[in-house]
Amino acid sequence: MAKSRSEQPERPRAGAPVLTPRDENFPQWYQDVLAKAELAENGPVRGTMVIRPYAYGIWERMQAELDARIKLAGADNAYFPLFIPMSYLQKEADHVEGFAPELAVVTHGGGKELDEPAVVRPTSETIINTYFSKWVQSYRDLPLLLNQWANVVRWELRPRVFLRTTEFLWQEGHTAHATQQEASAYARRILLDVYREFMWDVLAVPVHVGLKTVRERFAGAINTLACEAMMGDGKALQMGTSHELGENFAKVFDTTYLDAEGQQRHVWQTSWGSSTRMVGGLIMCHGDDDGLRVPPRVAAIQAVVCVVRDGEGVADAAASIVKELAAAGVRARLDDRTSVSFGRRVTDWEIKGVPVRVEVGPRDLADGTVTLARRGRRDKATVAREGLVALAADALEEVQATLLAEAVEHRDAHTRAVGSIDEALEASAAGFARIPWRLVGEDGESRLAEAGASVRCLQLPDGSLPEGYEADEPDLDALVARAY
Amino acid sequence: MAKSRSEQPERPRAGAPVLTPRDENFPQWYQDVLAKAELAENGPVRGTMVIRPYAYGIWERMQAELDARIKLAGADNAYFPLFIPMSYLQKEADHVEGFAPELAVVTHGGGKELDEPAVVRPTSETIINTYFSKWVQSYRDLPLLLNQWANVVRWELRPRVFLRTTEFLWQEGHTAHATQQEASAYARRILLDVYREFMWDVLAVPVHVGLKTVRERFAGAINTLACEAMMGDGKALQMGTSHELGENFAKVFDTTYLDAEGQQRHVWQTSWGSSTRMVGGLIMCHGDDDGLRVPPRVAAIQAVVCVVRDGEGVADAAASIVKELAAAGVRARLDDRTSVSFGRRVTDWEIKGVPVRVEVGPRDLADGTVTLARRGRRDKATVAREGLVALAADALEEVQATLLAEAVEHRDAHTRAVGSIDEALEASAAGFARIPWRLVGEDGESRLAEAGASVRCLQLPDGSLPEGYEADEPDLDALVARAY
Repeated sequence: MAKSRSEQPERPRAGAPVLTPRDENFPQWYQDVLAKAELAENGPVRGTMVIRPYAYGIWERMQAELDARIKLAGADNAYFPLFIPMSYLQKEADHVEGFAPELAVVTHGGGKELDEPAVVRPTSETIINTYFSKWVQSYRDLPLLLNQWANVVRWELRPRVFLRTTEFLWQEGHTAHATQQEASAYARRILLDVYREFMWDVLAVPVHVGLKTVRERFAGAINTLACEAMMGDGKALQMGTSHELGENFAKVFDTTYLDAEGQQRHVWQTSWGSSTRMVGGLIMCHGDDDGLRVPPRVAAIQAVVCVVRDGEGVADAAASIVKELAAAGVRARLDDRTSVSFGRRVTDWEIKGVPVRVEVGPRDLADGTVTLARRGRRDKATVAREGLVALAADALEEVQATLLAEAVEHRDAHTRAVGSIDEALEASAAGFARIPWRLVGEDGESRLAEAGASVRCLQLPDGSLPEGYEADEPDLDALVARAY
Repeated sequence: MAKSRSEQPERPRAGAPVLTPRDENFPQWYQDVLAKAELAENGPVRGTMVIRPYAYGIWERMQAELDARIKLAGADNAYFPLFIPMSYLQKEADHVEGFAPELAVVTHGGGKELDEPAVVRPTSETIINTYFSKWVQSYRDLPLLLNQWANVVRWELRPRVFLRTTEFLWQEGHTAHATQQEASAYARRILLDVYREFMWDVLAVPVHVGLKTVRERFAGAINTLACEAMMGDGKALQMGTSHELGENFAKVFDTTYLDAEGQQRHVWQTSWGSSTRMVGGLIMCHGDDDGLRVPPRVAAIQAVVCVVRDGEGVADAAASIVKELAAAGVRARLDDRTSVSFGRRVTDWEIKGVPVRVEVGPRDLADGTVTLARRGRRDKATVAREGLVALAADALEEVQATLLAEAVEHRDAHTRAVGSIDEALEASAAGFARIPWRLVGEDGESRLAEAGASVRCLQLPDGSLPEGYEADEPDLDALVARAY
């Protein structure tokens, strides 16, 4: 692990806290965690970011878990170019209107001015449809289900590391189907079986699922489904979206197929994405005043084995514990930096939010024991070395479950059912407001926007995703919040 | 590739061959394979490419195998921004001179002209060093070993899919060390334990390793090590490079550390990369007149299970064979597209180069057998269904070994030891020339360049990598070839 200046000074536990307390200044706490846990920094070009190894390891775990679910949903990975001719973007009117203000434009290449400026992709619907229109000929070519892992660029006026960055990493899925029904079903499947399941089960983030209002839809979509999470300060973060594009792009890119009856038809499409923004969501959902808390299933380091201090055989014993844990499938890391004080190392691992810590010292070794600690818990246990691996695995399961339970509790404790826009605004100062959509409507959305809030999604009163996408269905609830 | 005509499979379709024969026109054969095996296409912006799912699946396997070896070598993944301020690139004189003609430049972002143009990274030494100089303070911070998987852009005048593209995908490693000895040892370690091992063992491409001459060095390096492969037409392809950067970047970016004696010192650095170009190398090293041949260890599909024609229980039997193969760790795919003729599907899988094919028909099913075929071999075997999984696994091992053996044979059969520049040029029309470096020198390199050849690398006469990097060591051999 790279060491930085932030690790250098002796940090007495007793004095000032390492991080700004969340209650005092949540945004500053977030910045402190980014720096002290060595997660990320600002890049030199405004709004870009450097993702440091510890955070990138979390992103790699996110990618692996999401990628497996995307493949189970039948989509193959592919790669489309970073540069899109400006004219492609201009084909779909809503799409270009939505993205034009955020574009980065390459005007020169190889020392010459380009004949046509190239846009650095803000999303890839237009370039992918150019190829779909070549590849899709007959109904036998459908459904066409592709995904790509890529960087995209959207110029940000108010950048914030992980949450809104000019460049970010993401996956974007793009599919073409024979019928609206199939496209609609696939967009739901991605939202529920890929995103929702991943976010609840792996990230331990209890997202709400729902429809976006017309106002909040993706530029060019006929329907947008979303996962919305509550952060530690009660604000909302959109964690992933799945769009029904209807025939909008198929019409402008002429993506048609010959159906079984010999009729030429437009395909129905979806697109869906999730990004490094989720790393920010993970930090703000689970973090506490001592730092990050990483759910074990997404932790690059699940257990750190610390040599308390040098002593006969201690370093060897710790190294062999790392091996045993690794053999049992636990992602374990050795910390034998005994030139750094033990207390400081413990503080650092707590800030980094490693779920389980094993401490090995000379006395433990003599007794045939080690110390097992869970992130953020004072009740360290002295356990027999023989039984450690099983206990560590149990502890990881428990930490995973606890993080989810706490997040659900926090979310529900900060959600109020209300009966007016005024009450919704009041509730959104501390969390989510649940309000019948018929009491909001487009005028209500404007009032919310003026006050800094928005309808995050529409859902049935039991929290489930409505069928169809008629945003004026009378029985839907709107979740109102201030959002990142 | 050295395969006798008698080994050619039956080609179910009469008439013209699907692909241009290699002997007739190798570049056209390459283009044909790209198209017919659905590997890649040109992108709309000159020199960019679309990587289709089948080729991307191979790239994913390459990434997984390389990434594991990179992590074993101690490097962690991180991510640095796509955009680099122009001024950063200008700091190292050789570096900017080397890359300036190939840069793509972003001049506008968010609807405004930028104060300083941003370069789309052609490589990341300059931006990474900016952060290294912050992160490295003391000898305890060293070595700092990072890698990133990313896209890079170098404007290409003569683009060629996979081989030379304006945008390509790669990994780039960047490290900082306390001493020149450590940096030098690490650059060698990456070349030998990561690149060479991966290329021989996984890609079945028997690369030569050696030093680059001063003329061929990376812009900004004091030494470049390279892996060089021979393609089916006898030309060379550079498959990966590992550079010693000396103190060049450390000096201009002021990357220093306090050593154990309290002295401020510059770090010694390396950088190293391998890219989607390797996919092109794989095609041109192993392909034959029937298409691609994918080494099993890097094949996204190792075995395809084909339903010959519909019949009672055939599709179910084929599906359960896919499951059995998958359970045994074989990457298997079902082909039950019985609306397409069996012969045509066989031809397609041969073009795609899937190593092993299992054929299941109604008669087989009745007999309790299936047919097991290896790519490019006529001797299909009828085998008991019970024993299939073990036989398929054996066949994969055999295909892997055969591809490597054939590539070594081809390489050595097309390499001639020569004693003059003229002879080297003659030999390079058909393959590699091995010539004592003292007979070439810088003047000889100019003569070679005028005739379209170059020194691919310098190595000891036994093919091993020299210590040190004095390119004028008298006992080195130069490998001369025409190169992609």
